[in-house]
Amino acid sequence: MTEDWLAEIKWLDGLLHAIAQDATTGRTLMFAWMNREALKLTAETGFAHYWSRSRQKQWQKGEESGHQQRVQEIRLDCDEDVIILQIEQVGGIACHTGRESCFYRKLQDGQWVVTDPVLKDPHHIYAHK
Amino acid sequence: MTEDWLAEIKWLDGLLHAIAQDATTGRTLMFAWMNREALKLTAETGFAHYWSRSRQKQWQKGEESGHQQRVQEIRLDCDEDVIILQIEQVGGIACHTGRESCFYRKLQDGQWVVTDPVLKDPHHIYAHK
Repeated sequence: MTEDWLAEIKWLDGLLHAIAQDATTGRTLMFAWMNREALKLTAETGFAHYWSRSRQKQWQKGEESGHQQRVQEIRLDCDEDVIILQIEQVGGIACHTGRESCFYRKLQDGQWVVTDPVLKDPHHIYAHK
Repeated sequence: MTEDWLAEIKWLDGLLHAIAQDATTGRTLMFAWMNREALKLTAETGFAHYWSRSRQKQWQKGEESGHQQRVQEIRLDCDEDVIILQIEQVGGIACHTGRESCFYRKLQDGQWVVTDPVLKDPHHIYAHK
């Protein structure tokens, strides 16, 4: 397989925006960044890999938590700088807070209101902490 | 209504990532940027406003095309730097190419394959062009 498809992406300082969406429910679960290697690995392995800007390293989603993301589809936007992964979220938890989705607050009467329960205590998800 | 909810956002050089998702079908339609004023106007008017980085100006989605986005819900992520708008897409076209969604290509056998039809010729959407 050639890597022409990677060359078509408009990398922003070497990075790409990535949105992970539950392939079954359509719920948007998280937003993260990818570098070229992370996207290549995602396509090759079928598991989501990202780039951590804070840690300046590539990582596989779930490498510590076990909450991997099995990728069913990768879509690219018209500007070639954002992709969507349609995924199956192992464990049903995408957020580091132990919730299904990172988007667990909604704006209501001028306040951000938490709508989602914590499904698993983060201290139990990340054993090293 | 106070503006405390705006102060809770971690603005990146004054900007925020925004994902627009069809409130009925769950399809992700577009990705864009907002500044503080665009988000405030979005919440106040119920219509999506964004910030154009290329044109360095704030705009209301659909101001030229008529394809406004009626906002039903605004959600914030755990890092406070990405929001999702659950919207009703007027005209059924979110992409400037005349397609329903900006994410109209999917990766298949190492190529980006267009999966979505053009619903309306962009020359007819943007009369001034």
